[in-house]
Amino acid sequence: MAAPSDEEGAVGPRCHHRPTAMLDVPFLPFCAFLGTLGLLCVAMVGTWCQHWRGGFSLDGSSRTFNWHPVLMVTGLVVLYGAAALVYRIPNTWSSPKLPWKVLHGSLALGAFVLTVLGLVAVFCFHNAQGTPNMYSLHSWMGLATVLLFSCQWAAGFGAFLLPWAPVWLRALYKPIHVFFGSTILLLSVASCASGINEKLFFSLKNGTMQYKLLPAEAVFANTLGLLILIFGVLVVAALARPSWKRPDSDSPDSRQ
Amino acid sequence: MAAPSDEEGAVGPRCHHRPTAMLDVPFLPFCAFLGTLGLLCVAMVGTWCQHWRGGFSLDGSSRTFNWHPVLMVTGLVVLYGAAALVYRIPNTWSSPKLPWKVLHGSLALGAFVLTVLGLVAVFCFHNAQGTPNMYSLHSWMGLATVLLFSCQWAAGFGAFLLPWAPVWLRALYKPIHVFFGSTILLLSVASCASGINEKLFFSLKNGTMQYKLLPAEAVFANTLGLLILIFGVLVVAALARPSWKRPDSDSPDSRQ
Repeated sequence: MAAPSDEEGAVGPRCHHRPTAMLDVPFLPFCAFLGTLGLLCVAMVGTWCQHWRGGFSLDGSSRTFNWHPVLMVTGLVVLYGAAALVYRIPNTWSSPKLPWKVLHGSLALGAFVLTVLGLVAVFCFHNAQGTPNMYSLHSWMGLATVLLFSCQWAAGFGAFLLPWAPVWLRALYKPIHVFFGSTILLLSVASCASGINEKLFFSLKNGTMQYKLLPAEAVFANTLGLLILIFGVLVVAALARPSWKRPDSDSPDSRQ
Repeated sequence: MAAPSDEEGAVGPRCHHRPTAMLDVPFLPFCAFLGTLGLLCVAMVGTWCQHWRGGFSLDGSSRTFNWHPVLMVTGLVVLYGAAALVYRIPNTWSSPKLPWKVLHGSLALGAFVLTVLGLVAVFCFHNAQGTPNMYSLHSWMGLATVLLFSCQWAAGFGAFLLPWAPVWLRALYKPIHVFFGSTILLLSVASCASGINEKLFFSLKNGTMQYKLLPAEAVFANTLGLLILIFGVLVVAALARPSWKRPDSDSPDSRQ
């Protein structure tokens, strides 16, 4: 994910304004679009589970499983994406960084709690049904993503929020934290896509409702999968765009 | 995907060298590692189809299908990744850009040809078996990826290799080409992961070979899926790293 550099826009004998300026999008409208897209994903995964998969319960049935996609999309994709974008809000760049660090860490913690509850839902469902856990590639990818996320949160808390963390450790760890921030989101959306695909093969296999006959549920959930992918790619693109990054060295408490 | 900035390494009262310098990895050893990982993915997908799925043929059976994963992993992931990384080879920065443009376009064309053959394999298999095409989320994601790739190749050829393309068009289109370059690779690896997951659910469902019992084939193919994800993430990280980008403005024929 790379963004236009200034020098790319400086050429062009027949065009005296910066051509890449035509691609410049202000952060806040883009962020509002991303927020709408994220809420749409949450609404669609909820609608899928409520309307086609029987709704929600805590009785160990497939209605317990239904919490899994809703909590994963809400926590590990949408809320996680919101947490990742906190530092990109330009209006916050002139104020101290510490409150935004706390907000970033709190949103990420909220995302992590929803994610763990999403895992609990699928483990409870499997255990109640006598189905083994952790055999599919989807489950391997998903658990690897959640383990990376837990390490990311703990290391981020230790390095950036504990006041006695040494400055050299923060400087060393920051690029690693930024890299894994985007990586975890991409692994999340890949896990969601494989999970939706798998769930549709499990659920749509009888009579006229077969997945291969593309009933309305399949079209709806396939569309949800594509929207989740688009959301993840756009968040990572926004994170990578140099002009949207907070100018850290100017921050009065970036070393707090 | 972001890389360390110089300013991040400039702090640290108890540490007078740049902390992020400890994270500096030379491009060529990293590239050799990526090449090995890519070849391992190709070898593993070939081994999976040959050893566990009955090998290869052109008779419309599942052995025709087996060309699909092999060609997709080889073309749309590994060869595509190699094409994307051509401009990052530092030894080429002092020489004219045109030969490297041709190599980039040729490798991408090779990847595209393998990808189309991979699609032909799965369509032939489905048609021979009377199975509908294009119903699963995997197929929607995969076809969207291939369509984006075809637009990317055609637009890249028109803007960067045709000598009469105007300079302003190149400057305008370049960041879009770079953005979709990484996006297509990420969609490819997400498609591969959902495809491997789906194939294992289709293939391992009887007797003692059930997917949920995690036989050797499942462990092998799940591992392959994780390695493909790691390959894709590392290629995109390499593409995004500022210090590995070709300094375009110094190139003698970047506007050819």
